[in-house]
Amino acid sequence: MNTKEKLHFVNDRQKEIILLSNTAGLLSWDQETYMPENAVEFRSEQLSLISSLVHERMTSDEFFKIVSELKEENLKGDERVMIERLYHDILRARKLPSKFVEKKSKAISLSVNKWREAKRKKDFSLFEPYLRKIVELSREEAKYIGLPGSPYNSLLDAYEEGMTVDKVEFEFMKLKEGLLKLLGKIKGSDVYKKQNKKLLTGEFPKEKQISLLLDAINRIGLRRDFFRLDLSEHPFTTRLGDGDVRITSAVRESNPMFAFESGIHEAGHGLYEINLPKNHIFNFLCDSPSLGLHESQSRFWENMIGKSKPFWKFYFPSFSKEFMIEGSFDSWFREINFVEPGKIRTEADEVHYCLHIILRFELEKGLIEGNIDVKDLPKLWNNKMIELFGVAPKNDSEGVMQDIHWAWGNFGYFPTYALGSIYSAQIYKCLKKEVPGLEKDIEKGDFSKIREWLAEKIHSKGRTLLAEDLIKEACGEGLNVNIYLDYLNEKYGEIYEFN
Amino acid sequence: MNTKEKLHFVNDRQKEIILLSNTAGLLSWDQETYMPENAVEFRSEQLSLISSLVHERMTSDEFFKIVSELKEENLKGDERVMIERLYHDILRARKLPSKFVEKKSKAISLSVNKWREAKRKKDFSLFEPYLRKIVELSREEAKYIGLPGSPYNSLLDAYEEGMTVDKVEFEFMKLKEGLLKLLGKIKGSDVYKKQNKKLLTGEFPKEKQISLLLDAINRIGLRRDFFRLDLSEHPFTTRLGDGDVRITSAVRESNPMFAFESGIHEAGHGLYEINLPKNHIFNFLCDSPSLGLHESQSRFWENMIGKSKPFWKFYFPSFSKEFMIEGSFDSWFREINFVEPGKIRTEADEVHYCLHIILRFELEKGLIEGNIDVKDLPKLWNNKMIELFGVAPKNDSEGVMQDIHWAWGNFGYFPTYALGSIYSAQIYKCLKKEVPGLEKDIEKGDFSKIREWLAEKIHSKGRTLLAEDLIKEACGEGLNVNIYLDYLNEKYGEIYEFN
Repeated sequence: MNTKEKLHFVNDRQKEIILLSNTAGLLSWDQETYMPENAVEFRSEQLSLISSLVHERMTSDEFFKIVSELKEENLKGDERVMIERLYHDILRARKLPSKFVEKKSKAISLSVNKWREAKRKKDFSLFEPYLRKIVELSREEAKYIGLPGSPYNSLLDAYEEGMTVDKVEFEFMKLKEGLLKLLGKIKGSDVYKKQNKKLLTGEFPKEKQISLLLDAINRIGLRRDFFRLDLSEHPFTTRLGDGDVRITSAVRESNPMFAFESGIHEAGHGLYEINLPKNHIFNFLCDSPSLGLHESQSRFWENMIGKSKPFWKFYFPSFSKEFMIEGSFDSWFREINFVEPGKIRTEADEVHYCLHIILRFELEKGLIEGNIDVKDLPKLWNNKMIELFGVAPKNDSEGVMQDIHWAWGNFGYFPTYALGSIYSAQIYKCLKKEVPGLEKDIEKGDFSKIREWLAEKIHSKGRTLLAEDLIKEACGEGLNVNIYLDYLNEKYGEIYEFN
Repeated sequence: MNTKEKLHFVNDRQKEIILLSNTAGLLSWDQETYMPENAVEFRSEQLSLISSLVHERMTSDEFFKIVSELKEENLKGDERVMIERLYHDILRARKLPSKFVEKKSKAISLSVNKWREAKRKKDFSLFEPYLRKIVELSREEAKYIGLPGSPYNSLLDAYEEGMTVDKVEFEFMKLKEGLLKLLGKIKGSDVYKKQNKKLLTGEFPKEKQISLLLDAINRIGLRRDFFRLDLSEHPFTTRLGDGDVRITSAVRESNPMFAFESGIHEAGHGLYEINLPKNHIFNFLCDSPSLGLHESQSRFWENMIGKSKPFWKFYFPSFSKEFMIEGSFDSWFREINFVEPGKIRTEADEVHYCLHIILRFELEKGLIEGNIDVKDLPKLWNNKMIELFGVAPKNDSEGVMQDIHWAWGNFGYFPTYALGSIYSAQIYKCLKKEVPGLEKDIEKGDFSKIREWLAEKIHSKGRTLLAEDLIKEACGEGLNVNIYLDYLNEKYGEIYEFN
């Protein structure tokens, strides 16, 4: 084969992998939204077949050989980058023996089921042996991958290519310190001492929550002909193919803002997916460089926009009318930005959110590096909760079993949530500098310039750069915790009146 | 390989084919119900990839060799039958060269798009060259398959294994004669001359249509944990795996009974799918022997049950209340059984329905045997409409372009609708004899004995027998048009008061 033929082969193979992966995406989306309960077992057989077809295609000797050869050739531009990314992904996939992949996938399936049961029964001891197995397999996986330094690096790399545990730890240290300092100021303020919820306690009819959310999603830039919104237990976003982004939301009685806020979060993911480079639809560059960068988009829309003053200047009148809210704009804005030491990550305020992540990161790093034993997790979790939040969970279902990620074997995933939060503040700072009149536009519900800026600087780059390089190119510097801390200090200083 | 190993291989292969086919099923179901418009192109690439994976697995030399060897071994019972069915299906699939399958699939994709456009524009000339291509390819396909007799046999066999065009033609002749004779009596009656719709003209709110339909579906025997009901342009039923049957319905303003009646029809298909033999979930015996037999189940519930007096004795009070119907039970029952020479097959009454089928059969037989040219179709269609119905369609969209089947290349499919109708009357006759108190049960909305009888005598047999043999075993005799004509004569004689 000459170079052209090799590239042709590589493109065909990528296309097949993408078509199959998106088919698995539909099988999963359907499972979370519409599938009848009885079909669980059959569905898991389908998913496992499709993922083995993908794995076969990804790891075949022929494919690896051709990609390796192309890597040594003098390719230019996107083609060169595409081959680099492919080489990275194939190498990673080939390091894991099929038997191991199968064993892990079965263990995960059992562990997720057991996690559900144990969470329902509030009994960690049921889950413990399954989690122990998953930790063992994850440590084994890290050995197979074998990146330098801590074994945690090998897991982190699957979600955040190019990031290392040392860097995460260093940045998280600064972040933790900054957040605790800010929390101290907030808790010391008179406003905090007197705060209590008045406006978010009334009736928020489900249909109205959804119709306001749809309005916001449309304004963010998702049009009806290439996206849909459905309901599922936990909100998520998935792209099922070119021109087909699916967002889900969940209406929760305990939190009338959950559907709206989490829906805007998901719309941020959705907008990214829709704006990925069209010319790479059928290759691996039509992707984000990392989960952290993906999360920067959802966190940006959820927080920097969706919890900002100009945004609520636009939306408060509608909310006020639809939900018959009897209160001023100022008290509404303050309430939706209340800082409270909640025990649940997914409903945490901006200031507490990353502390939830740091807690998980510290524990999972210990598990993977072998310094923490699974049986000690509940106690360690609760101690850290008290250390960081000043409150302990009522039980292990609200504590160590709160998230599904560990049951899924997703070690190395949690840090990406905090990295995304940091990036989102960097993007916001940069955007404010480069787009004059931004806040005035937001007040009018017009997000077009934001959308265009994000599409140009972030989304359209696909996976041509690593996450931090992309941020550097877009905003002039790499990961910078201080910008995030400045953003939080300014915003919450104003709300809690201690600046 | 010894026999046991061969059977093991064959079972694994069937399971893979079934998992993949049902994945394609989900891709199609989603396309008809929830997929955003923009995704059409990507989706068709996915479907074509999955179907090529199925085709590869189905036609591989290794699989064929092993099945051929097993066919010569002394297998017993279901294993023997399974190998026979497999051999039939593989042989058929292997007769078609991959290049031909690809060519036909592309031509179909173009022809379906053009059919939609031409139907919208009411212009057959747009569709004509595409349909001509499809007819040519179907004739070519018949040559590849090469069953004895008319080339139409080779196409019919894909939908109605074991049936021949000679037999269909012979039975349809009797059917046509009988239906026209019955229509003559109906049209000559005083009741017919005075009939007009009064009760089916009011407001039928969509939600109430759906909730009454759901009630009926539940009574028929579909439970919430293994089925779901959604909306699509045209109603259909598909099983996406064990414990996962999807029914769709459509609410039409022009016909307030359409959702309910077509929904009951689809529930009949659904019940069949749910009751297929559990021990064959992952092999080819977990299927119906033919489309005609499948249709017997939907037509049975739609007509013999869903348009019967005892059924309406149970449902009329609810309908009367929900839709505020001001009229007697008798006039309601008469109205929903009105015989009218409509031009649309899918909304035809029981007496006209099979005439629609016979018209299509006669034309498509002519096309495949080469006696009819595509350009003459509209004229021939309209002439036949006048001959059989006494009315001509307003335009070709209501005439020759009414159904999508020919655009899909489904020649040989239409007769199965009439065969199903005939079988449904045979089943009903037999059921009445074997289940005492049947009508009393129906009047109480209790279909449990019907459900059990059907499950035992029809559904649970799967594909272990050919359709006609299965009917023979269940009801004592094979296809018998006269039983269907007797049923219609008795029912409509009573309604139109000419007996």
